Amino acid sequence: MVLAQAARELPADSVTEWRRGLLRLSAELADSRPSMTPVRNLLGCWQAEMSGETVLDLAAARQAAAERAEELIARSQQAARTSAVHAAQLLGAGRTLMTHSLSSTVLETCRLLKDRGLRMIITESRPLEEGRRLARQLSAWKVATTYITEAQMALFVARADAVLVGADSVLADGSVVNKAGTYLLGLAAREQRVPFYVCCESFKWRKLGEALPELEEMAPSELKLPDWPAVTVRNVYFDITPARLVSAWIDETGARWPNVRP
Amino acid sequence: MVLAQAARELPADSVTEWRRGLLRLSAELADSRPSMTPVRNLLGCWQAEMSGETVLDLAAARQAAAERAEELIARSQQAARTSAVHAAQLLGAGRTLMTHSLSSTVLETCRLLKDRGLRMIITESRPLEEGRRLARQLSAWKVATTYITEAQMALFVARADAVLVGADSVLADGSVVNKAGTYLLGLAAREQRVPFYVCCESFKWRKLGEALPELEEMAPSELKLPDWPAVTVRNVYFDITPARLVSAWIDETGARWPNVRP
Repeated sequence: MVLAQAARELPADSVTEWRRGLLRLSAELADSRPSMTPVRNLLGCWQAEMSGETVLDLAAARQAAAERAEELIARSQQAARTSAVHAAQLLGAGRTLMTHSLSSTVLETCRLLKDRGLRMIITESRPLEEGRRLARQLSAWKVATTYITEAQMALFVARADAVLVGADSVLADGSVVNKAGTYLLGLAAREQRVPFYVCCESFKWRKLGEALPELEEMAPSELKLPDWPAVTVRNVYFDITPARLVSAWIDETGARWPNVRP
Repeated sequence: MVLAQAARELPADSVTEWRRGLLRLSAELADSRPSMTPVRNLLGCWQAEMSGETVLDLAAARQAAAERAEELIARSQQAARTSAVHAAQLLGAGRTLMTHSLSSTVLETCRLLKDRGLRMIITESRPLEEGRRLARQLSAWKVATTYITEAQMALFVARADAVLVGADSVLADGSVVNKAGTYLLGLAAREQRVPFYVCCESFKWRKLGEALPELEEMAPSELKLPDWPAVTVRNVYFDITPARLVSAWIDETGARWPNVRP
């Protein structure tokens, strides 16, 4: 959306100058949130489409580039929705699902299953407690929901028919970058033989050979600890759940099972 | 301590009446906190010693019973301190240890190692955040401490030389009843090949054939979630870490390794 706006408004006297400014901006955007793979992937698609373009006059070029960015946003959102449709089909009616943090694909899956006997087990998701937003929405949908601390995940995972989480990125080997705590839930799910599904659009997959995403760390102040001299507060937002803990990856093309991966 | 006071003050006209009242009280105490094995075990010791006693006059009986209760408290506290001495010896100088929640034996082990290059990784321990008290004490001792959310345990356990936790109870097979989240830390430690030690006095071991302790649940209000109709807040305080995740159990007699267990 930043790019679409810039495509329309970036001051420039020529198509060349405008294009150079826009490509620089797209590179900066890709670097600004290194762990947000879809941003990189969508910008990569946009750049590829831009470079294959015949030169137009500036006004027409602005319009074409902006529309291309907006179309990519729509394509990505549609892919996320379709991923949730596949998740809902795979999981079916009358299930108890457990999740951690708040993912848009998981939320959409819940919306699709809310009148089909869905029950949810969700975590508060410290430090920002995204679980509260999820709890409020599920309650509005009248989905019977159990709300726990992260610490209780191993106690409650056995009551779920499946775990369903989203992802911030998926590495080329299928390992899942998601909200810190997902790895613990994956370990607990394996221990209790509960299937562990990851649902996200394919824009979130990183390419083979691409460097590991930096695991972003947020302000220590979010943990609200007094300032004690010998104590360092760490607030890493993401962890990486190894691929071997994942039962299936669900994207807009359907479910991918470990034994049929390329 | 309740029993010592009652031994001295329980209104009674005869030794028989006094003894009956005291035994009823001790049974009630044992049932009042079903997951607190040491309370049961200490009361069991006290009852056994009481029943082997020759009848004295009421004043002498009061004094003897109270002293016996106080002596058991002292014995239990000494056993906990000695357990920590063994833990400190086993772990040695210059180590980074990770723990979860706040255990008196772990705190004592930290005190013994605080001037020997100890570093700690500790969790906030929702919902009551006992980790804060531990952080404040470690900072006062100038022990370099990393403070994290439970969600980050899998990210940080690999930086520890060992995990050291206390226990509320240890089952006869060596499984560990401790603050919820300990099971997750045990899974993460095994995954990262970090030794996982449990340190507590032997009064906390349950006898073979004794029923599983009830896992006590505290007030949902501790999670501070608004009251949403479809949402049930759960606040179970303990989980059970399977014995196979434990590298060694440390009590006042020393360390017990899985391969030399009876």
